[in-house]
Amino acid sequence: MIDIKPGSDGAAARAAPGTVFEWPVRVYYEDTDAGGIVYYANYLRFFERARTEWLRALGASHTKLEAEDGLLFVVCDLTIKYLKSARLDDQLIIDVRVAEARRASLTLAQTARLAGYDEILVSARVRVATLRRGATRPAPLPKWLLQELN
Amino acid sequence: MIDIKPGSDGAAARAAPGTVFEWPVRVYYEDTDAGGIVYYANYLRFFERARTEWLRALGASHTKLEAEDGLLFVVCDLTIKYLKSARLDDQLIIDVRVAEARRASLTLAQTARLAGYDEILVSARVRVATLRRGATRPAPLPKWLLQELN
Amino acid sequence: MIDIKPGSDGAAARAAPGTVFEWPVRVYYEDTDAGGIVYYANYLRFFERARTEWLRALGASHTKLEAEDGLLFVVCDLTIKYLKSARLDDQLIIDVRVAEARRASLTLAQTARLAGYDEILVSARVRVATLRRGATRPAPLPKWLLQELN
Amino acid sequence: MIDIKPGSDGAAARAAPGTVFEWPVRVYYEDTDAGGIVYYANYLRFFERARTEWLRALGASHTKLEAEDGLLFVVCDLTIKYLKSARLDDQLIIDVRVAEARRASLTLAQTARLAGYDEILVSARVRVATLRRGATRPAPLPKWLLQELN
Repeated sequence: MIDIKPGSDGAAARAAPGTVFEWPVRVYYEDTDAGGIVYYANYLRFFERARTEWLRALGASHTKLEAEDGLLFVVCDLTIKYLKSARLDDQLIIDVRVAEARRASLTLAQTARLAGYDEILVSARVRVATLRRGATRPAPLPKWLLQELN
Repeated sequence: MIDIKPGSDGAAARAAPGTVFEWPVRVYYEDTDAGGIVYYANYLRFFERARTEWLRALGASHTKLEAEDGLLFVVCDLTIKYLKSARLDDQLIIDVRVAEARRASLTLAQTARLAGYDEILVSARVRVATLRRGATRPAPLPKWLLQELN
Repeated sequence: MIDIKPGSDGAAARAAPGTVFEWPVRVYYEDTDAGGIVYYANYLRFFERARTEWLRALGASHTKLEAEDGLLFVVCDLTIKYLKSARLDDQLIIDVRVAEARRASLTLAQTARLAGYDEILVSARVRVATLRRGATRPAPLPKWLLQELN
Repeated sequence: MIDIKPGSDGAAARAAPGTVFEWPVRVYYEDTDAGGIVYYANYLRFFERARTEWLRALGASHTKLEAEDGLLFVVCDLTIKYLKSARLDDQLIIDVRVAEARRASLTLAQTARLAGYDEILVSARVRVATLRRGATRPAPLPKWLLQELN
């Protein structure tokens, strides 16, 4: 069930541990290519929007995390499977599930589906880490965030 | 006032003539550049999202317009002024106003503002026309759509 | 005549005053949309690539300008006319011409054409200014750069 | 060694079996994000440009493949590792190596490095298949292309 509306700042977002966070994404011309389908790189944009909103719902927006903790999230690696194509005007649901939470990295399982359908169009496993700005080695996630996740 | 939520398909959208249609857009990493601000071309993506949702609210989604009327919207020309920068995590409001409705083209006035603020960050005037798929000359807008707009 | 090859760093680039700087751009899937043509915002990316290479040919790469002069180029306003569509695999030539050089801003005339053809697909007038990083008001262009341009 | 120049249509491109195909990509503002580095999804754009040019060098441009064989390349799945960041103005070399050629799919190993350096910034394994336009099941690769690759 989708209970988060983009743009509605005060949404009583659910991003509790064990649950699935869902974020709606509409497909616009900018997202498609001459094959008539969503360009393959653009799912990475959609997945990142959902991760960003999931973190925001947990109280960890990018700007807050950087201002207060000096931390940036970076993607370390990912695998992605393209099973079926999305098209112009499709309403997609992107979800975020914590697959593994470590001290300095999170592995997230994400999928894209059509709203109202269960079939998975694209699925991904994305490992993200936190870096201290300017540094090149991962820094531990903020404790309060790890506690939220466990 | 923002009364349209992205992702809420059944929204009782207001896109009546003379009124202003507003669409919220959140700034993600994908939208920014190494200058720390929204990359200048990306406002054209934001403006197109708002135009698309405005047309959808009028009952003229791109896919319906193409399936039923064989028509595509294309941008003919635009002018844009960049007054102030938007940044990561900013919540923008993009609006759409009909400046001029002709038989085969529409001129739209659009702006981007921070949600809750009146100051205009970016303003544009965009002329769009309808083309019959495959053709190169503008075709008239569907009558029912012109009636909606006038 | 195109005498600049992307990727060939040591190219004896011509960017002399009064002349036209040309830069080749190939159309990939990433640039197109479900209408089968180049997405309208992407010409702004192409135009910026050509401006960047023109500045690099003048000895003013973005990173050098920022490191040595603390200056960033920003686009203030632009007008753009879409006359004809480009498609997948098209080889475009983007050109850059100085229309006006002022103390703190440059107006550039730019066009996109198919390689080997004179017909203009898209034309634009782009006004750029230099900002001191962190500041919001334009700063004068570096003197050596203005001398190159006049 | 880079022996392919973008934009030089007649280049005597080398894309022989067993060899590595290299393609230069310059990092522009459009490619970066507010973290000051190349946005993670954009490497997929870079990798696709290199695959497209490799296919073109083999005589199999997307438009030719579709016009003559009715075939489209689609990405089925990929894994990507982000080891080190690229930044504005960096000159990257993207390479393409055939890891496995099957009847109806190719697995390609691709990396991004700084020109003149051996260190890998990003590496990926990308499986692509050919689809007959409109169909949803993979079609065999054209025989002449498979012969080129083996």
